[in-house]
Amino acid sequence: MEALTRPIFLLTDFGTRDQYAGQVRAAIASVAPGAPIHDLTHEVEPFAVDEGAWLLECSLGVLPEDAVVLAVVDPGVGSGRRALAAQCGRRAFVGPDNGILSGIVPEELRESPGQDGGVCRVESAALGVHEITERRFQRPQVSATFHGRDIFAPAAANLASGVEIGELGPQVRELFVLAPFRGRPGSDGVLTGHVVHVDRYGNLVTTIRAEQLAGDSVVEVAGRTIEMRAATFASVPAGVPFFHVDSSGFVAVAVNKGSAATLLGSRRGDYVTVKRR
Amino acid sequence: MEALTRPIFLLTDFGTRDQYAGQVRAAIASVAPGAPIHDLTHEVEPFAVDEGAWLLECSLGVLPEDAVVLAVVDPGVGSGRRALAAQCGRRAFVGPDNGILSGIVPEELRESPGQDGGVCRVESAALGVHEITERRFQRPQVSATFHGRDIFAPAAANLASGVEIGELGPQVRELFVLAPFRGRPGSDGVLTGHVVHVDRYGNLVTTIRAEQLAGDSVVEVAGRTIEMRAATFASVPAGVPFFHVDSSGFVAVAVNKGSAATLLGSRRGDYVTVKRR
Amino acid sequence: MEALTRPIFLLTDFGTRDQYAGQVRAAIASVAPGAPIHDLTHEVEPFAVDEGAWLLECSLGVLPEDAVVLAVVDPGVGSGRRALAAQCGRRAFVGPDNGILSGIVPEELRESPGQDGGVCRVESAALGVHEITERRFQRPQVSATFHGRDIFAPAAANLASGVEIGELGPQVRELFVLAPFRGRPGSDGVLTGHVVHVDRYGNLVTTIRAEQLAGDSVVEVAGRTIEMRAATFASVPAGVPFFHVDSSGFVAVAVNKGSAATLLGSRRGDYVTVKRR
Repeated sequence: MEALTRPIFLLTDFGTRDQYAGQVRAAIASVAPGAPIHDLTHEVEPFAVDEGAWLLECSLGVLPEDAVVLAVVDPGVGSGRRALAAQCGRRAFVGPDNGILSGIVPEELRESPGQDGGVCRVESAALGVHEITERRFQRPQVSATFHGRDIFAPAAANLASGVEIGELGPQVRELFVLAPFRGRPGSDGVLTGHVVHVDRYGNLVTTIRAEQLAGDSVVEVAGRTIEMRAATFASVPAGVPFFHVDSSGFVAVAVNKGSAATLLGSRRGDYVTVKRR
Repeated sequence: MEALTRPIFLLTDFGTRDQYAGQVRAAIASVAPGAPIHDLTHEVEPFAVDEGAWLLECSLGVLPEDAVVLAVVDPGVGSGRRALAAQCGRRAFVGPDNGILSGIVPEELRESPGQDGGVCRVESAALGVHEITERRFQRPQVSATFHGRDIFAPAAANLASGVEIGELGPQVRELFVLAPFRGRPGSDGVLTGHVVHVDRYGNLVTTIRAEQLAGDSVVEVAGRTIEMRAATFASVPAGVPFFHVDSSGFVAVAVNKGSAATLLGSRRGDYVTVKRR
Repeated sequence: MEALTRPIFLLTDFGTRDQYAGQVRAAIASVAPGAPIHDLTHEVEPFAVDEGAWLLECSLGVLPEDAVVLAVVDPGVGSGRRALAAQCGRRAFVGPDNGILSGIVPEELRESPGQDGGVCRVESAALGVHEITERRFQRPQVSATFHGRDIFAPAAANLASGVEIGELGPQVRELFVLAPFRGRPGSDGVLTGHVVHVDRYGNLVTTIRAEQLAGDSVVEVAGRTIEMRAATFASVPAGVPFFHVDSSGFVAVAVNKGSAATLLGSRRGDYVTVKRR
């Protein structure tokens, strides 16, 4: 069973205490009144494009096949950065050209610009990227600081209502991407990554991937070596730090019924290494 | 007037800053694109099954008659605890077998296991409880730590779309329940309860029920005796603590235009007694 | 394209951690199962009617033309204050008679009661205000402290489902309004206003309007004079305070990639002045 219009998912750093996320919803509902609007989250750390990109990438596997995603963490709003709309399979994504949409770009293309990210060239037939330029698909007044409401919301709503992505503006061949979220192997066999997200429970989610772990891996973070690996929280005594593969396939350091962030004094951005015992 | 699919209400401790609640919505929308998805709250205190159960119980009276409720506070995820789906009248509920669904179980059954909760036997025709075992109603990959997304969300979505609860798995006769939220009378006529929830305004909501109050009752919490009872906030001078029957029928200690939690230095779990003047 | 029922937007100080906003959604869904329910925000500062009124006013321009808005910041709940429903063009609004709905009242009517607000008389054909008195459009049990759920939610849901506003209760000619959000000019040409909202990023949004700025205006807040004006965040070095016209047309003091509230030690309610250089 399909809804009349495609569902729209929102991922931003707008928070929930201001009018920003609400105005995005209002701008969408004005164009696509029948479109279901769902939050992924609005609480990306302010200006943290990499965290937003990671959260989006984590959620790609669970989004409906026909979803339209608005992903806006946009410290460069009003500057020259382009507004993009991308088609990836049956899904569509809108957001600024600053790396927030990296997750829809094949990994091999994201490796080439280097570790700090950069511009990559997209030639794949499976991924069509367009610049949003058509004024008729934007709000009548476009503010200098809130393109989430004035450009991206109506673009998402129009896509959800059946507008073809090519109508929003011309296809582009290059976009800014972040390096893949993945541990970097050093010459000594040690993997280096970082804490990409601290969740509500205080779990430290890292950029190390499940498939990068060996049977005898240990994780170092914030000066502590975590040797215990577990599959579930309930299998570990309360208060003891352990690592596990989280529900998105990344290695996370956690504490059963406690906060690893508090216990270990760690936070987003901290370096993480994985070595063999 | 009925929507095409039943509305789904979400009650979790997932918070709103991570991808968890968003992925639950995405998993639901993938199965039941037309189902309205509404939040009850995602901010149950992490791991606090009793608070979640209380919040759900408070809301039973206002939920639509055909609602499907996903209630997940699940510290035991991945352990042996069962995943349940329950039919109660025309409503359906999904959640772990840890007491979170206590509110749908008749009170007399919840008394018998004792004050710390326990397993009760359900024979009522009005309440049908099933274990969710059928793999075809779960996500293709079931993670060890996120059954909210992988088991409970698709179960709720399928129920909302018309799947019969018996298709999810076999009926069970026992489930874990918490003792009723109610003051315990002592031999001296004093009622004992606790602060079950501190709300956004700092109101201390207790487990004492409206019908347990006498005309000359006073409430003690955090070493303070609150003698003033009022019906509305506006009838009390700003800054003065008072008690009242809250909108869910429980006794709450409050301060007009202020926070009782801050003023009295009290928090969730604190003991509360009610005695006669 | 129109949805089957009108969309309902919610603006409250209920927060998201309790059952309050969720019960409002449940009460609406019980009456109008097909109505899309969208949050503007639930995080108005507790009891801050003026902040809520400002947030609503900011969002009027972006709401769908047929929107129904529930706006409830209601410290006087249960007292004599009336419950109102207002028709303004094709939109409808419900909320307490305490100024929260000021934004829908023409500015000239809001000037007359004076700077602290007051009762104004509405004779305009474009604005029809009714008191919600009809019991059949309220929940069967109306609590003393939660009219958001028991009176305003069903009123909004009924309006969204096609009930005429006149059915909710008799038309009234007077309502309480706040003075317009606008800088007050002094005899020396200096404008005086205040910080009406501090947003998630720490931006200090003021009551001074864009059109009140001159080319050589400077803004004073918290003992600091802000001389730099910019159009976008990205055009200012990180960490430097500047002022700009925000996306709602009000003057805001901001810091690129930082918090003006923290940097300047300012908060909601602080006085702001604008003078010529």
